[in-house]
Amino acid sequence: MRIAIDAMGGDFAPATIVEGAVAVARELGVSLLLVGPREDVARELGRHTTSGLDVEVLDADTVVEMADSPTSVLRGKSGASIRVAVEAVARGEAAAVFSAGHTGASVLAAQKTWGLLPGVERPALAATLPTRHGLAVLLDCGVNLEPQPKHLVDFAHMGAAFAEVALGVGAPRVGLLSIGEESRKGNELTRDAHALLAASTLDFVGNIEARDLYTGTADVVVCDGFTGNVALKVSEGLVEAVEDLLRDELMRTAATRFGAWLARPAFREFRNRLDHEEYGAAPLLGVAGLCLVGHGRSSTRAARNGIAMAVRLASAGVTERLAARLPGR
Amino acid sequence: MRIAIDAMGGDFAPATIVEGAVAVARELGVSLLLVGPREDVARELGRHTTSGLDVEVLDADTVVEMADSPTSVLRGKSGASIRVAVEAVARGEAAAVFSAGHTGASVLAAQKTWGLLPGVERPALAATLPTRHGLAVLLDCGVNLEPQPKHLVDFAHMGAAFAEVALGVGAPRVGLLSIGEESRKGNELTRDAHALLAASTLDFVGNIEARDLYTGTADVVVCDGFTGNVALKVSEGLVEAVEDLLRDELMRTAATRFGAWLARPAFREFRNRLDHEEYGAAPLLGVAGLCLVGHGRSSTRAARNGIAMAVRLASAGVTERLAARLPGR
Repeated sequence: MRIAIDAMGGDFAPATIVEGAVAVARELGVSLLLVGPREDVARELGRHTTSGLDVEVLDADTVVEMADSPTSVLRGKSGASIRVAVEAVARGEAAAVFSAGHTGASVLAAQKTWGLLPGVERPALAATLPTRHGLAVLLDCGVNLEPQPKHLVDFAHMGAAFAEVALGVGAPRVGLLSIGEESRKGNELTRDAHALLAASTLDFVGNIEARDLYTGTADVVVCDGFTGNVALKVSEGLVEAVEDLLRDELMRTAATRFGAWLARPAFREFRNRLDHEEYGAAPLLGVAGLCLVGHGRSSTRAARNGIAMAVRLASAGVTERLAARLPGR
Repeated sequence: MRIAIDAMGGDFAPATIVEGAVAVARELGVSLLLVGPREDVARELGRHTTSGLDVEVLDADTVVEMADSPTSVLRGKSGASIRVAVEAVARGEAAAVFSAGHTGASVLAAQKTWGLLPGVERPALAATLPTRHGLAVLLDCGVNLEPQPKHLVDFAHMGAAFAEVALGVGAPRVGLLSIGEESRKGNELTRDAHALLAASTLDFVGNIEARDLYTGTADVVVCDGFTGNVALKVSEGLVEAVEDLLRDELMRTAATRFGAWLARPAFREFRNRLDHEEYGAAPLLGVAGLCLVGHGRSSTRAARNGIAMAVRLASAGVTERLAARLPGR
């Protein structure tokens, strides 16, 4: 199996991306197609030992910058690394693409090049969240900022299918993220979406409040992309603040320092379970191909885990199984 | 000073509310006006020692339930405890009202009875968040689910005034909660609000991502009430999940258990700084009176802290100072 990697996408690219990719190639024995301006990628690759690994560079003449418009990937920057990577997948030269670059550009490149799965109107980014009872899927996390109510039903079908095929959830319970449990609480979008979800074939458990995202009340939680992105980013920021705060408190006295030292395996495990880098990337659901969107601030570890997720989802044939599982229109 | 308390508001009312109120009366020497059906409140009050305290019961014939419409407080349930409490403040019988009941009903009762401060079109709920550099104000947290862009500018003025007069922030920096730092990132509301905020007299620092809510990048963060409520509730849920997870991990081995025991003062302090109950309530800004909205799930400790906050803000003359500080229209 070969994974195409947008080597230039992300705040710390190409350094962390190439390092993470090489680590995955070594650990999982997969092949890499590193996409970007040949010289830049080759220079970065030269810093690593790649003997025995199947690593190829695919030249791309430019890169979509964060300040660029998403549509630049279709016009003006059609030779950008993310576009070239997606096209390599379309030609069958790679099984999936990973990018920590401009999310909007990745989505447009994937959607225009691969098309959408039957019955899907809008693709959505699905984040995997740790809950007290296993993993949950939150979508959309940033693609559709102002979706229509019917799109939330699509997200629910895609999320449920993903929970089944990728997370092994038997009969996914679907919740609607809102600000009160009663059906008429929320904004116009959630009130209308509630009625549509209740009338669907999904196992709809109703509105769930944001405080229940981490309790495992629902396996799949749907919302507009603005709200989903805020929920995800608040969580990341809070986990970092919590760690800082806890570290400050634990360093205060000799007793608490010794206590923290004794308890360090617990802290390590705790950090792993909460850390967004552990998940590494969010799959773009609904496109006819596998695209993993990494965090803009992807570290080497995040890139490694995101690319490993691409390998896992590609091996499981997630896109094909999603297509088979989605209710066509 | 006397505080009017909606004794029946909240999931665990009247028990936790009355207990919290009696604690504040004893600790801070303030008078209480406990509002609700006389028998219910008197029965609950009978469980506590109130000798030496100035505690009065104000009869109200009904209560707004969570399933009621907010407007029931104006029609049908005009004798509800929250309405009676707000009217007592209007008559000068109390300096502020605290309610952990139906938020929408509290807002409507306060707005209709007291009116709005000059220049304010929509009141907003302001949550106080702990950051790495002091406290920040997030608003709106649940009143205006679909505000117009100009309302976010009003929220910014109210939040900045509140940060100055209640939190002692010198020159509050205002941020707009969005999903990217660039001005054109976000939805229609944030893009339009960005332009208005940039043209205002406020110290506007631009879009801030949700991950920066807890870094102290801005002293005041404005958003629509749906997004604000989600951000707040995600944080609450995550803190609880984090505590559970950490407890599980720390209990795993004898060494980690002993470590946790040694480090327990650090954990206690850590919990206090993150716990939403520590703040207890969110002030409703923009109405011509002081109304503190407590969490629906208010425990005795949350009620106690929320009522103590009402005492603190009333003593500081926050409403009058807000009125003087807001740019009139």
